[in-house]
Amino acid sequence: MDPINLYDYESRARASLPHNNWEFIEAGAMDEFTTARNRSAFEDLTIRPRFLRNIDNRDLSTTMLGSELSFPVFVCPAGGHKLAHPDGELATARGAGMSNTLMMLSTSSHYSMEEVSAAASGPLMFQLYHRGHDLTEMLVHRAEEAGYKAIVLTVDTPVPSPKERDIRNQYVNPAELANFRATPERLAEVSGTDEAPNWQPAQVPPLSWEELDWLRGLTSLPLVLKGVRTAEDAHIAAESGVNGILVSTHGGRQIDSTMSAVEMLPEIVDAVNDNCEVYLDSGVRRGSDVLKALALGAKAVGVGRPLYWGLANDGAEGVHGVLEILRREFDHAMAVCGQTSATNLESNLINIPHNWGPARMAP
Amino acid sequence: MDPINLYDYESRARASLPHNNWEFIEAGAMDEFTTARNRSAFEDLTIRPRFLRNIDNRDLSTTMLGSELSFPVFVCPAGGHKLAHPDGELATARGAGMSNTLMMLSTSSHYSMEEVSAAASGPLMFQLYHRGHDLTEMLVHRAEEAGYKAIVLTVDTPVPSPKERDIRNQYVNPAELANFRATPERLAEVSGTDEAPNWQPAQVPPLSWEELDWLRGLTSLPLVLKGVRTAEDAHIAAESGVNGILVSTHGGRQIDSTMSAVEMLPEIVDAVNDNCEVYLDSGVRRGSDVLKALALGAKAVGVGRPLYWGLANDGAEGVHGVLEILRREFDHAMAVCGQTSATNLESNLINIPHNWGPARMAP
Amino acid sequence: MDPINLYDYESRARASLPHNNWEFIEAGAMDEFTTARNRSAFEDLTIRPRFLRNIDNRDLSTTMLGSELSFPVFVCPAGGHKLAHPDGELATARGAGMSNTLMMLSTSSHYSMEEVSAAASGPLMFQLYHRGHDLTEMLVHRAEEAGYKAIVLTVDTPVPSPKERDIRNQYVNPAELANFRATPERLAEVSGTDEAPNWQPAQVPPLSWEELDWLRGLTSLPLVLKGVRTAEDAHIAAESGVNGILVSTHGGRQIDSTMSAVEMLPEIVDAVNDNCEVYLDSGVRRGSDVLKALALGAKAVGVGRPLYWGLANDGAEGVHGVLEILRREFDHAMAVCGQTSATNLESNLINIPHNWGPARMAP
Amino acid sequence: MDPINLYDYESRARASLPHNNWEFIEAGAMDEFTTARNRSAFEDLTIRPRFLRNIDNRDLSTTMLGSELSFPVFVCPAGGHKLAHPDGELATARGAGMSNTLMMLSTSSHYSMEEVSAAASGPLMFQLYHRGHDLTEMLVHRAEEAGYKAIVLTVDTPVPSPKERDIRNQYVNPAELANFRATPERLAEVSGTDEAPNWQPAQVPPLSWEELDWLRGLTSLPLVLKGVRTAEDAHIAAESGVNGILVSTHGGRQIDSTMSAVEMLPEIVDAVNDNCEVYLDSGVRRGSDVLKALALGAKAVGVGRPLYWGLANDGAEGVHGVLEILRREFDHAMAVCGQTSATNLESNLINIPHNWGPARMAP
Repeated sequence: MDPINLYDYESRARASLPHNNWEFIEAGAMDEFTTARNRSAFEDLTIRPRFLRNIDNRDLSTTMLGSELSFPVFVCPAGGHKLAHPDGELATARGAGMSNTLMMLSTSSHYSMEEVSAAASGPLMFQLYHRGHDLTEMLVHRAEEAGYKAIVLTVDTPVPSPKERDIRNQYVNPAELANFRATPERLAEVSGTDEAPNWQPAQVPPLSWEELDWLRGLTSLPLVLKGVRTAEDAHIAAESGVNGILVSTHGGRQIDSTMSAVEMLPEIVDAVNDNCEVYLDSGVRRGSDVLKALALGAKAVGVGRPLYWGLANDGAEGVHGVLEILRREFDHAMAVCGQTSATNLESNLINIPHNWGPARMAP
Repeated sequence: MDPINLYDYESRARASLPHNNWEFIEAGAMDEFTTARNRSAFEDLTIRPRFLRNIDNRDLSTTMLGSELSFPVFVCPAGGHKLAHPDGELATARGAGMSNTLMMLSTSSHYSMEEVSAAASGPLMFQLYHRGHDLTEMLVHRAEEAGYKAIVLTVDTPVPSPKERDIRNQYVNPAELANFRATPERLAEVSGTDEAPNWQPAQVPPLSWEELDWLRGLTSLPLVLKGVRTAEDAHIAAESGVNGILVSTHGGRQIDSTMSAVEMLPEIVDAVNDNCEVYLDSGVRRGSDVLKALALGAKAVGVGRPLYWGLANDGAEGVHGVLEILRREFDHAMAVCGQTSATNLESNLINIPHNWGPARMAP
Repeated sequence: MDPINLYDYESRARASLPHNNWEFIEAGAMDEFTTARNRSAFEDLTIRPRFLRNIDNRDLSTTMLGSELSFPVFVCPAGGHKLAHPDGELATARGAGMSNTLMMLSTSSHYSMEEVSAAASGPLMFQLYHRGHDLTEMLVHRAEEAGYKAIVLTVDTPVPSPKERDIRNQYVNPAELANFRATPERLAEVSGTDEAPNWQPAQVPPLSWEELDWLRGLTSLPLVLKGVRTAEDAHIAAESGVNGILVSTHGGRQIDSTMSAVEMLPEIVDAVNDNCEVYLDSGVRRGSDVLKALALGAKAVGVGRPLYWGLANDGAEGVHGVLEILRREFDHAMAVCGQTSATNLESNLINIPHNWGPARMAP
Repeated sequence: MDPINLYDYESRARASLPHNNWEFIEAGAMDEFTTARNRSAFEDLTIRPRFLRNIDNRDLSTTMLGSELSFPVFVCPAGGHKLAHPDGELATARGAGMSNTLMMLSTSSHYSMEEVSAAASGPLMFQLYHRGHDLTEMLVHRAEEAGYKAIVLTVDTPVPSPKERDIRNQYVNPAELANFRATPERLAEVSGTDEAPNWQPAQVPPLSWEELDWLRGLTSLPLVLKGVRTAEDAHIAAESGVNGILVSTHGGRQIDSTMSAVEMLPEIVDAVNDNCEVYLDSGVRRGSDVLKALALGAKAVGVGRPLYWGLANDGAEGVHGVLEILRREFDHAMAVCGQTSATNLESNLINIPHNWGPARMAP
C-alpha cells in the first residue's frame, strides 16, 4: 500500500536505512526536548473549521521573494542527501520540481550547487554556512551564477551542538562536501561545525550583524536568515534590511531546551511588522500544520526530515510523494476552514491554548 | 452480567464485531486527536453537587423543536447500522422509541427513511447530506412525507476526511444506500463523500449560506445545521433563521485537530443568543456529560458510536439499554446536583478548569 | 519492618484482605476520577518551609466543637469495620483513643453506637444517614444518650452512587447493621442507600434545608454537615446555624466527576466566614496534607480508607499506628514550616499552582 | 567511550556502587516529589538564543564572596564522599581544584576539614550543621584557621526528614565523621540529624535568627545560609546582614512536597534586593540549567549528586570530568545566547511558562 501520511514514510525509512544514518537524520541535540516540542506545540493548536462556503476553487500557490510555489511548502536545506539515496540532492531537486515548489540547498550538500541547479526544474535558494569570508564569497558568487534565487544564511550555529546519538554511534558523515571540491585543502575548516558529532569548535567565528552589509554587498540576491528564534533578533533583522526570516529550531538539531519554532512565530511576526517575509520550519508533519503556521503569520513552511524519508523510500518520487501528501492535507485543511487562497487567509482560523508559548521572560 | 456502563457495551461490541467493521465505527480522522479530546474535555469538567433539597420529582423530559423526548439524549445520525446488527436502523428506531426519545436518521442509512419511519414509535429527524440539488429535493420531500420532524443538514463534510484506519483496512462499506434505491444510476455521486476511506473528491460542491433559503423553501420542516464548530458560523446560522444547531465534531470522524465539541459549545451558545436551539454530540459517554453539556447551554445531546455498541450487543434492546444507562446516570447527576427539571437548570452547576477551551484566536 | 508510611499499610491490607472486601474499601464511584483527584490535588500543593525559628514546643492539639484532639486528625465515619477486622469499630475506637483523637461512628457500623461508646476513651461523634424521621429520631436520641458529642449528618447521598467494582464483584456487605438490631423489620429501608452495589433507589427522600430545624430540635448536640462541596451550600449551612461543615467527597465513593475536597475548601472557608467550623476529609495520606488543609482553613482533617488499612494490619494497634504516622509527619511538616501551634498557623504556608481548583463556573 | 553528559556518569555510578550506597545518594525524602520537580522545573524553562554576535571571547568566570571561580558552578556540600570513592573529599577537592572552582565541605565529611584543605587547590567554604553551641564554635574556629572562605550554615534541617529508601534498606552510613575525631564521646549528638534513616529527633534545637549574631561573632568569615526556600526568609536574611543565600531544596533530600529550588529563585532574588549574593543548587544537570539559574538572578550554582557520580567513576578525575562537561555545556549555552560574560548577562534570556512556579499563596 502507498504511504498514506508522512509517518508511513518515516517508519519505512527507519526500516530501510542503516542504523547510524537513520539516527543521524532522526536525532536532535542533547535531550531532544526541542525536537519533541516542535511536534507537541503544533498538536496543541487547533483549527476552527468554517462551513457552507464556496470552496470550489482553492488557490494554494504562494511566493517566496517572488519565486512561485504551487503550495506553501518548500524543501529545507539539510546536509548530505546521499545518506538516504544515491541520487542525493539531485533526486530531491527533481522531486521538488515535480511538485512545483522551492528547494533550499545546503552548503553541505553531496552534489554541488551547479549539479543540483542543472537537475532542478523549480526555484532554488542556497543555504549558506559561513566558514570564512573568502569561502563565503566563493559560495555566494557561485550561487548567484548558478541561478539560485536567494542566500539563506544559517545563523543558529555560532558553535556546534552535540547530537548525542551521533556521538554514541561514532557517526561519521561518509560523503564528500561537493561544494568544496575545488578547495580540498580547506575541508577541515568547512566540515567542523555543521552538526558535527563532537564539540570541536568552529574554525572561524560566525558572522555578525555588522558584517551582513558585507555579505549583501557580495550579491544582488536577497538575503534570508535561517534560525532566528526571538523577537529581538527578528527586529534587528528587519531593521537591517534582511528580506526574509526562516523561523527554525533546525529541527531541534542545534540548541536544545528552546521553545518550538511555531511557539516563537507570533512574537517574530509581530516584531518584523511586515518589513520582511517570514517562513517557518521544524515539526511540520501534517497539512493542518501548514495552515496553523500560515494563520500565525508564516508565508510558507519547510520540511526537513520528511525529505530524507521520501528519498529513502523512492528517491525523487518519494520526495514528490511526501510533498503531495502535504499538499493534499493542506488543501483539505483549507477546504474545511472555508479558505480559498493561501495568500489571503481569513483571521481567527486557529485556537491558541492557555498554556502555549512563552508567558513571560526572565528579567 | 448486564452491562453497567457504556464502556461495557463498547468492549462487548469490540469483541463481537468483525475487525474492520469495528474499526470503521471506532476510528476518527487522521491522528484521532479530536476523537480523544472529545472525551478528555468532558472529563476535565467537574460538577458542583448541591444537597438537602427536595428532589423527589425529577422531570428529565425536554423538547427538540417541539418534539418531546423523555430525557435530553437523542440518537445521532450515523451511516449504515447493518454494520452492527442485521435489523440496522429499524432496530435503532425501535430502541429509541422504547426509550421515548428522538432519532436522527442518516442519509446513508441501510434501511430507507420510509422503512424506518414505519418501524419507529418516537420522533424522527432526517439527516441530510447534500449530493446535488435534485437529490436533496427528493430526500427532503420524502422526509417530510414520511413524517420526519426536521431536516438536519450536515455541514462539516465540504470535502471528505480520511479515516486512516479504514484506508489501511481497505474497508468497503458493504451494504446498500437504501434511500437511493430509486436512483441506482447515481450511487457513485451519492456515496463518494461520506466517511469514504479515501480522498476521493465530492462529486458536487457543498451548499452555501446563500443556498439555505432554497433548501428551506423546499419544505415546511425546520432546519438544523449539524457540525457547526465556531461562534462565527453559529452567528450566521442564527441570523439566517436556522432553527437549531447541533454542535458536533462528527465524533472526530471528520476533520482532525479541532477542539472538542463541548469546548466550542460556550462560544456558540453565546453567539446564537437564544435565537435557535443548540444541541451537542461527540464524546458523551456518561450521564454527567449530559448535565455538563446542558449546564453549558445545550438543550439535548446525541450519542453516535454507543448506538452501534448497543446494536451489536442486542439490536433494539441494546440501543434501549444504552439509552437507559444514560438516563439513569443523567437522573443521578440531576439528583446529586439538586436539580428537578432538565429544562430549567440552576446556574453554576459545573466548574470549568483554567486551561479548558480556546484561550485566544490567531490574528 | 514496621510500616513507614500509610502506603505500607495500604499494600499490606491489599495483600491480606479478601479481594471483594479490599475492592469495596478501595473503590470509588463510577470512573473513580474524584478518588484520583483527591490525591493529585493534594500533591499539586506545595509547602513553604520556614527556618531558624524556635520550634521546640510544638502544640499539635486542636478542638472540634469543644472536644479535644491531640492533633488535628480524626477518624472518619465509614461503614462496617468488621470488613477489615473482627473487632470492627471497637478496635477503631480503641485505636483512636490510644492516639487521643476523635472518632466519627457511622450509622452503618458493625457494632452499635452503645458498644462503641463503651469501648472508646476519646471523643465520639455520630454520623447520621437519614432513613426516615422516626429512625433518625431514634438514632439521635441514642447518640446523645451514649455520649456522642455531635451529630454528623451526611448530605451527599441524596441518591446512591454506583461503585462499579462492587457491582462487578456482586459484593454483598456481609455483616449486620448493629445500630438497627431493635428494628430488624426495617432493615431494607435502612440498608438500601449507603454505597449499595446497585442503583436501588432510596426508600426515603433526603432531608431538606427546611427540615434541619426539626433535626436540631431533637437534640442539644451540635450539628455537622458532612459532604458539602460548594460555597453555595456552605453559605446556606452557616446561615442555618449549622455548627460544622465536613468538606468531603466521601473519598470519591459517592458522586464521581467532581473536584477534590481540598480544591473546594477555599471557597467554602470563604463562604462560611468563620460562622462555623470547617473540617475536611478525602485524600489525606501524608502529614503535609494535614498542614495544607489547615493552611487553607480547615480546623481538622479526617481519614477513611487508611483506618481500614490499619485495622486489617493489626486491629486497634493498626489504627493507632496509622494515626501516629500521620502525627509524626504532621509534626514534621509543622517543624519545617516553623510552626508551633496547630490552631494558630501563620499565613502564606503553601503555594497554590496556577491551574489548581475551579477557574470559573458555567453560567 | 568517555561519558558525554552527566547522565552517563549517573548510570555508570548506579552500575558500580553497592545498592544501598547508590540509593542513599539517589533517594529523596518521602515521596521524592521535590527531587523530581527539581528536574522538571528546569526542563520547563526554555532559553532564548541570540545570534550574529561576536562571541569569540566568552568569560565564564565569576566570584562567590570574592573567591574566584573559573565558571559559575561549585561543588555542593554533601556528607561522606567515601561512599563513592576511598579518597572521598580529598578527591573531590582535587577535582574541583582541577576545574578551578569552589568546593563547599560538609560538616559530615569523611575527611576532616584540615585534611581537605591541605589537598585542595581551589577555594573552600565550610558547611555547618549546628549541633550545639560549643561544637559550632569549635567547627567555625577550625574552618577559619584552615583557610575556608565562608561558613555555609544549613538551615533546612530543623528536624530530620526520612529518606524512605534508606529506611527500607536499613542503611547505615559506614564511615567516620572526620571532623569530630577529637570529640568521639559526642558522636551520637552529632550524627543524629543529618539525613538519618529514621525519625530520631535532633539532640539540639536549631539556631534561630536571633542567634545568627552570636554565630557571626565567632568569626570574621562571611556567612551563607543554605536551604532558604521563601522570599520571607530571604528578606529576613538580607536584613540580618547575611552575605549569601544558597537557594536549595537539599536535592529533595530534606522536606518533600515543596517547590523546586529554581521555582523559588525569582521571589528570593526579588526579596534580597541585591543586599546579598544568591546561589542555587538542586537539579542542575545541564549547562543550560546554569544559564537559566543565572538569568533568574543566581550568581553561581552548585551540584551535589553529580559529584558522587564523578567520584564513583574515577575519583578526582571523575569530579573534574563532571565539572568540565558542565563547563562545556554552559559555555555552549552562553555562546548560543550570544553572551560573553557570566557576570554580565543580558536580560530576557529565558522563557518562563504560564504554569511555572507559585501562582498564589494560601491566606
